[in-house]
Amino acid sequence: MTESPITPREQDFAAWYQDVVLQGDMAEPAEIVKGCMVVKPNGYAVWERVQRELDDRIKATGHENIYLPLLIPESFMKREAEHVEGFSPELAVVTIAGGKQLEEPYVIRPTSETLVGHFFAKWIQSYRDLPLLINQWANVMRWELRTRMFLRTTEFLWQEGHTAHSTHEEAMEEVQRMLDVYADVAENVMAMPVVKVRKTGAEKFAGALSTFAIEAMMQNGLALQAGTSHDLGQNFGRAFNVQFQSKEGRLDYVWQTSWGVSTRLIGGLIMTHSDDKGLVLPPKVAPRKAVIVPIYRKDQERAEVMEAASKIARDLGAFLDAREGQTPGAKFFHWERRGVPVILELGPRDLVSGKIVIKRRDTGVKEPIAQSEAAAKLAATLELMQKDLYARAKGRLHSNTVVANSIGEVEALLSGATAEKGGGKFVMAHAKDAPEVDARMKEFKATVRGIPLADHFDGPGRCIVTGEPVDRRVAIAKAY
Amino acid sequence: MTESPITPREQDFAAWYQDVVLQGDMAEPAEIVKGCMVVKPNGYAVWERVQRELDDRIKATGHENIYLPLLIPESFMKREAEHVEGFSPELAVVTIAGGKQLEEPYVIRPTSETLVGHFFAKWIQSYRDLPLLINQWANVMRWELRTRMFLRTTEFLWQEGHTAHSTHEEAMEEVQRMLDVYADVAENVMAMPVVKVRKTGAEKFAGALSTFAIEAMMQNGLALQAGTSHDLGQNFGRAFNVQFQSKEGRLDYVWQTSWGVSTRLIGGLIMTHSDDKGLVLPPKVAPRKAVIVPIYRKDQERAEVMEAASKIARDLGAFLDAREGQTPGAKFFHWERRGVPVILELGPRDLVSGKIVIKRRDTGVKEPIAQSEAAAKLAATLELMQKDLYARAKGRLHSNTVVANSIGEVEALLSGATAEKGGGKFVMAHAKDAPEVDARMKEFKATVRGIPLADHFDGPGRCIVTGEPVDRRVAIAKAY
Repeated sequence: MTESPITPREQDFAAWYQDVVLQGDMAEPAEIVKGCMVVKPNGYAVWERVQRELDDRIKATGHENIYLPLLIPESFMKREAEHVEGFSPELAVVTIAGGKQLEEPYVIRPTSETLVGHFFAKWIQSYRDLPLLINQWANVMRWELRTRMFLRTTEFLWQEGHTAHSTHEEAMEEVQRMLDVYADVAENVMAMPVVKVRKTGAEKFAGALSTFAIEAMMQNGLALQAGTSHDLGQNFGRAFNVQFQSKEGRLDYVWQTSWGVSTRLIGGLIMTHSDDKGLVLPPKVAPRKAVIVPIYRKDQERAEVMEAASKIARDLGAFLDAREGQTPGAKFFHWERRGVPVILELGPRDLVSGKIVIKRRDTGVKEPIAQSEAAAKLAATLELMQKDLYARAKGRLHSNTVVANSIGEVEALLSGATAEKGGGKFVMAHAKDAPEVDARMKEFKATVRGIPLADHFDGPGRCIVTGEPVDRRVAIAKAY
Repeated sequence: MTESPITPREQDFAAWYQDVVLQGDMAEPAEIVKGCMVVKPNGYAVWERVQRELDDRIKATGHENIYLPLLIPESFMKREAEHVEGFSPELAVVTIAGGKQLEEPYVIRPTSETLVGHFFAKWIQSYRDLPLLINQWANVMRWELRTRMFLRTTEFLWQEGHTAHSTHEEAMEEVQRMLDVYADVAENVMAMPVVKVRKTGAEKFAGALSTFAIEAMMQNGLALQAGTSHDLGQNFGRAFNVQFQSKEGRLDYVWQTSWGVSTRLIGGLIMTHSDDKGLVLPPKVAPRKAVIVPIYRKDQERAEVMEAASKIARDLGAFLDAREGQTPGAKFFHWERRGVPVILELGPRDLVSGKIVIKRRDTGVKEPIAQSEAAAKLAATLELMQKDLYARAKGRLHSNTVVANSIGEVEALLSGATAEKGGGKFVMAHAKDAPEVDARMKEFKATVRGIPLADHFDGPGRCIVTGEPVDRRVAIAKAY
C-alpha cells in the first residue's frame, strides 16, 4: 500500500477516520460489493483480541457457542410483526440456488432471533431445559444505504447471544449481566468509556420489550452505540411457540434475551484514541505491543546491533523489525501508523551505554532506559498507557457532557455538530419517551441516545418538549 | 434432548454416524434450510480446539488473517473458465437486496479465489509485495444435493489460505508446507492418520494446476478427503491481472496457492474414533478432558463427597458434574456419549481409602488410583489415550490398505463396500491419470483418491486399465 498523508482531525474528522483506517492497515472498502469492506491484517488481529476477551467472558457467564445457518426462510422473518417491519427494508434475498429458482426464498441473516425461536421450540420442553444460554460468532448482513468502514457496513462480523429463561426477572438479570460484560470489555480492555442506557421506543430493537445499550463518545463528540442487550419478553416465544412446562406443571412461553456486539467496536476504538499521526491502540488490544527498530549504518554496526536487538526482543516478547532496505525512519512511520503502543530504538551508542530508547505511541515521549530494566519498564509503560488512554477518553466524555433545560438550548448545543467538523456533545435534558419528542430532535438531526441507568444528574423534571413529568434526564446527541 | 439408543456400527454405519453426532451434542440437521446443520455446543467446542491448533500453525508459518466479503459479483466467477464450470451448479444467488432487484446478482462465496484475485491485483505491484500470505476463517456455501452432517453440508465453516509468490517454485513450497501443516494437525492433534496425495485430473480443484490432499480412512474403510492445498499456477493471476514487477524490472503474473480445511474434519474425527457407545474424542481436541462424577446416597455423604470432589476438580482442572436430580449412572451415560476422555468417580468409600476411580472412554477400563497421584495419573492417561487412538487408527489404515494388480481385482475388493455396511479399503494399483480410468472406476462407484507422495509400494508399473506405463501405484477407494 502506498502511504499518504493523514487528514488532520480539525480539518475533517470523517476524512481523518478514513485515512487512519486505511493507513493503519485496518480495513479498506470492498467497492465491488455494496457497502462491504475487507478487514485487513491489523484490523483483524485487533478484532481477534477483542473477540478473545469477549468470548472468555461469555463462556465464564455460562454460555456455550453454537453455529446456526446463514440463511433464514423468508417466512420466518414475518412471524414477529415488529421484527419484520424493522428488518425487511435491509434484507438480502437468495432466490436461486443450485441452478434453480427456489420455491421459498431465503434471506441472509440480519440477526438470528427467528432461527433461534425455531430451534428453542425443539430444544425446550421443561423448566429443566432452562435457562438455555447460547452464543454464536457469525457474519450478518443488513443492506444499509450509507456505509462507513467498521461503523456501518452491509456485512459485518459479530457475536449474538440468545437465551431463554423461565421468568422475566431472570431474563432481566441476564440482560443486565451481558450489558455489564460489554461495558467491562469496552472500558477495561478497549479503554473506551461508555454510558449504560435504556433505549427509548424509537431506538429499541425490532421485536424487543426493551433494549439496553452502551453508548460511547467519539473524539468529535458524536455518540456511537457500541453494544446492545435486549429484553425480548415472550414475543419470540409466542411467535415460535417456545413453551415449557413449569415446576408446577403449567405451560408457559419462555422469556428470551439477545445481545450483540460487532466489528463496529473497532470503529469506536479507532475514533476514541487515534490521533493525527494515525492509529493509536490501547496495549490490551494491540496485536504487537512493542516493536524494536534497530539503527545502524555500517555492516559492522549492523551485526552487533542486530544481535543485541534480537536478544532484547526475545526477553521482552517484542517484535524485531529486521526488514532490510527500509530506513529506521520509514520503520518508525510504519509502526506509528499501525498504532503499536511502544517503539524501542536500539543503536550503536546504546550498545556502549547499555541503554535503549523507549517511545510511547500516544504521548510521543522518548526516554532512554537501562537495557537491564527494559522488561519492567516496558510492562509499566504499557500499563500506564492503558490507564492514560482511558482517563483521557473519560475526561473528554465528562467535559463534553452538558446539561440543558429547554429544547432551544439543546438545539443550540447540537445543531452545529457534524461528523466532519465535530462539536458533538451528550446533552442531558428531561425528555419523554414519545414520538413527538423524537420528531423534534430529528429537526436538528439529534436522537435520544437513551436513559442512563445511573442518574448522576438531578432526578425528575418536566419534558422539554411536552412539559410532562419525567423521572430523569436522558442523553441527547448526534450519533453514528 | 431425549437420549435414544445408538445403532451399532456393524448394523448400519451411516445410521451409527448420525446417532453419534446427535447423541454427542455435536450437530443436528437444520431441516428448514436445505442441507444445513446446527453445530451444537459440543461440536462447536471441538471445532474451536481444532481451529486454535490450526490458527497457531497458520500464523507461525507467516500468514495473517483477514476477512473478505461473503458476496461475490456473479461476473467474477466467470473470469476463470474451469472455476466457473466447477462451481456454477452449486451456487446460491442473491438477486434482491434492500427491497430492490439487483442489476448484477451476487453469489454467496463457495470459495474466495476470485475475490482474492481482485484484491491481490490492488495490493501487489512489485516483488517487494511478495510473498503475500493471507488466510481467512469464514462460512461458505455450496448447494449440494446429498448432504451429511459435517461431511457435506450446503453451508460449512472453514479456513481458506491464499498466497501469491514471485516464482512457481516458491508457490510449490507453500503448497507443500500447508499440506504438511494439515497432516500435522490431523495426525498429532486429531489422532487421525492421513495419506498425503496428489490428486488426479478428475478430482483437482476447478482452476488449479494441481491439487494435493490429505486422505483419511474412516472405520468403514471409506476415504475422506480431509484437507486440500492447491497450486493455482498463474491461472487466477491471469484472470484478474495480478502482475508484479520483478527485481529485474520485468512484469509477470504472480504464482498463487490456496488451501483449506473445514468442519468436515469434525466428521472425520467422529468416524475415526467413536464406538457403539457414542462419541470418542482424542484428549487434545476434547473440550472437557476429565469429568468427576460424585457418588452419594445420603445428605451426609453428599456434603463430604462434594467437598473432596471440588478440591480434586480444582487440582486437576477437571469438570465436576454437580447436577442435582441426576443419578451417577445418568451422568456416566451423559459424558460417555459426549466423548469425554476420562471419567473420575468419587464415592464415600473412596474418601476412606484415599482413592478415586479413573475410567478411560476408549477402552472402558476402570482403575482405582491414589488421590495423591491423580494429577500425574490423569496426565499420563490422557497422553497414552491420545497415542493409543492414533495407533489404533493407523493400524486400521495399514491393515485395510491392499495391493491389486488388475482392474478385476480392484473391483472385487471394492464393489461390495458401502457407507452403511462398510468393507471399504484403500486399494493400491497402477493407474493412469486419464478419463477412461476414472470412468472404469466409476462403474463400481470408486475413485482414484490420489497419487501418494511417499511411495511405500513397488515403483513403476503398467496401468490396470490402459496398459500404459505409470510411475507408481495410486490409492483407489470409495469415498465420502
